[in-house]
Amino acid sequence: MNPSTSALLMDLYELTMVQAYLEQGMEEPAVFEFFVRKLPARRNFLVAAGLEQVLDYLSELRFSQEELTWLDQSRQVSSRLLDYLGTLRFTGDVESMPEGTIFFPHEPILKIVAPLPQAQLVESRVMNLLNYQTMVASKAARSVLVAGGKPLIDFGLRRAHGAEAGLLAARASYLAGFAGTATVLAGMTYGIPLYGTMAHSFVQAHADETLAFEHFAATQRANVVLLIDTYDTEAAAGKVVSLARKLRANGIIVKGVRLDSGDLSDHARKVRRILDEGGLPHAQILASGNLDEYRLRDLIRTGALIDSFAVGTAMTTSSDAPSLDCAYKLQEYAGRPCRKRSEGKATWPGRKQVYRHHTPDGHLDHDFVTTHDDRLPGEPLLQLVMKNGSRLVPSPGLAELRRHAAAQLGQLPESLRALETMPAYDVRISLALQDLAQTVDRRL
Amino acid sequence: MNPSTSALLMDLYELTMVQAYLEQGMEEPAVFEFFVRKLPARRNFLVAAGLEQVLDYLSELRFSQEELTWLDQSRQVSSRLLDYLGTLRFTGDVESMPEGTIFFPHEPILKIVAPLPQAQLVESRVMNLLNYQTMVASKAARSVLVAGGKPLIDFGLRRAHGAEAGLLAARASYLAGFAGTATVLAGMTYGIPLYGTMAHSFVQAHADETLAFEHFAATQRANVVLLIDTYDTEAAAGKVVSLARKLRANGIIVKGVRLDSGDLSDHARKVRRILDEGGLPHAQILASGNLDEYRLRDLIRTGALIDSFAVGTAMTTSSDAPSLDCAYKLQEYAGRPCRKRSEGKATWPGRKQVYRHHTPDGHLDHDFVTTHDDRLPGEPLLQLVMKNGSRLVPSPGLAELRRHAAAQLGQLPESLRALETMPAYDVRISLALQDLAQTVDRRL
Repeated sequence: MNPSTSALLMDLYELTMVQAYLEQGMEEPAVFEFFVRKLPARRNFLVAAGLEQVLDYLSELRFSQEELTWLDQSRQVSSRLLDYLGTLRFTGDVESMPEGTIFFPHEPILKIVAPLPQAQLVESRVMNLLNYQTMVASKAARSVLVAGGKPLIDFGLRRAHGAEAGLLAARASYLAGFAGTATVLAGMTYGIPLYGTMAHSFVQAHADETLAFEHFAATQRANVVLLIDTYDTEAAAGKVVSLARKLRANGIIVKGVRLDSGDLSDHARKVRRILDEGGLPHAQILASGNLDEYRLRDLIRTGALIDSFAVGTAMTTSSDAPSLDCAYKLQEYAGRPCRKRSEGKATWPGRKQVYRHHTPDGHLDHDFVTTHDDRLPGEPLLQLVMKNGSRLVPSPGLAELRRHAAAQLGQLPESLRALETMPAYDVRISLALQDLAQTVDRRL
Repeated sequence: MNPSTSALLMDLYELTMVQAYLEQGMEEPAVFEFFVRKLPARRNFLVAAGLEQVLDYLSELRFSQEELTWLDQSRQVSSRLLDYLGTLRFTGDVESMPEGTIFFPHEPILKIVAPLPQAQLVESRVMNLLNYQTMVASKAARSVLVAGGKPLIDFGLRRAHGAEAGLLAARASYLAGFAGTATVLAGMTYGIPLYGTMAHSFVQAHADETLAFEHFAATQRANVVLLIDTYDTEAAAGKVVSLARKLRANGIIVKGVRLDSGDLSDHARKVRRILDEGGLPHAQILASGNLDEYRLRDLIRTGALIDSFAVGTAMTTSSDAPSLDCAYKLQEYAGRPCRKRSEGKATWPGRKQVYRHHTPDGHLDHDFVTTHDDRLPGEPLLQLVMKNGSRLVPSPGLAELRRHAAAQLGQLPESLRALETMPAYDVRISLALQDLAQTVDRRL
């Protein structure tokens, strides 16, 4: 059983509601939009991600015979619903912002237009996919913004929340500008460049640290990065220098060392000097160990002599904001716009479009959220990507999406690049949308 | 491709290190232990979970032909390593605490004894599985402790980090004492009881709220729980009362209502009165919406008239502590105990056992962590569960593990049940283990 592709990865109420819809003949087109209600603390923007996986999910949505049999035996559903699920295919339309696009609260990044039962059934998985990758890409982008061009590597699999999170964190962070990942499956699945060094256990498994380095070098040859903090960082750096001479005689170059504990800036300074004085000025220093965008910023600002960084847990879990206040809401059914008005959770009704305006020098200036039919100036951000269940264009490669994300980050005004909360970006609700909300409310 | 079962869900350095081990003939037995270095903020204990998935992973570890072909083409590995991976099976031993056992920092909950390459290869996935479920079970247990016996339901799939996290959060929270989940796949996979109501979109899809309730009731009949906060909570409660009379004539009973926004306590009081006065004293009130153990405690303490609670995002993401400071460390190789001494990350060496002592009235009193060969009084917590790659006993069912977890929570001393940080539980390092650490350090 593969949780990533099972049609039963849904909430029970979706089945219940669809059963009711079918019994009532409610199969007219519904419009659902996915958006974020408000930014997490300390975030000034979000980066849309996960669309590709949503399109895969919608394209491949099938109930297997095993799932149907279990549903039948569980007596959770009617035979009518079972028949419906047995032949279900997603036949709707999807509009979305391209992955890597910067967006803000109240701006839908995905719109699904499909017969009501279909659009309702996919709610949980669509949210599950978009929430996670968008959250991670947005978190990772903050590290990219402060890293000053130094390469960042995803080391987060071990504390990501399960298998799919580990895999998709590699994708979302690469999309946001990371240089690569340690997660091998992400290399195979998405072609993301792979990086890795050695673990402390490798050093410990040898009775002697120098011998461990020598064994590792003999195997790696072209990619020798040695972990030097298992016992005493500077002493190990000295061992690297001594060993490097011997290795050079065998045609092996020490590419670099990794620091993983203690005061990284202080160790880097001392280790840099040891390496330089030992004839290894080209050996690079990689740092890891509980890094996040704040520690990265401090290290960069203070000129730490570190060449690249591995970022793990904080990024893959989005540790300071491990979820988005996101929603997948019905905005229109059978041509009738609607909205919920629950306290603190009211939404703007109807199917929407977002228009973006730039400053003369190409930075983001303000956005308008308006009704789908209201043509405004500016760049429309939602694009039709799936029609009647079929993709309109082949999936853009991850490399292209990554370039798009980089261009988007380049359009951020200076203030929004900050790691602390800044005055909110100017998102305007159009008059047409405000009018629609009033009309909808009067009808209730 | 199924990320949950792919052998390539690992860090690149594991392949690199194994390649070096094979070249050096380092295939002697290695002992790795998984433990937590320190408790997350506001936690006083942890609940071990995820072992079952680790044993599944170890039992089923295989590199597929597709994975081997990709590895070959990617030129990341030697042909010798490829041959090794092609026939790899896990042949080691595993000791562990039973799932549901309460544990504390420095106490290993899992020990793997296997040829070094095998024990090294599985590092990332073992950590990935134990970190997540233990974190979630520990978080969920806090809600269970304050809920005063009222049922708790997992509603967290939509903001769990990916598919596997959604599925395993249902398992970990059920293990910790939740009554069930909304995630259908968890019902099919683990037999966990399923719960669900309706979404706001169901109400919105109807032009009239009462009609929405009526349609839902007609479908559900035996399980009518109506969501009443889409527009105006108390007004909707009034509609439920009116509708209930009509439904009763058709043999349908309104089982309850759900509140999802606003001041839950205040709404519950008003709604309870409306339901009681409307002849629905048996209709229950379910509350949801950004609940965590702190809000639960407040609602319970103030006597909120709520019968059950749905807990979502805060639990599945362990929002205030979305990772554990956990490690999977080499403690012994070829009979030689070892440890790392990295700053702030030093570990106790050697293969270990944990002995637990209780107070006369059956509460936890203190634990001893000692070397594996040191027989101490008390209850030994680590048990042999896998020998030479085969399980010693069939997997205990989730129901049995849940009873074990409940019994463990019952053994918590009063102070450790608090939601705030309390004085740490007494975990003692035995003299034998202290001596071993000194011996190991002298050798370096």
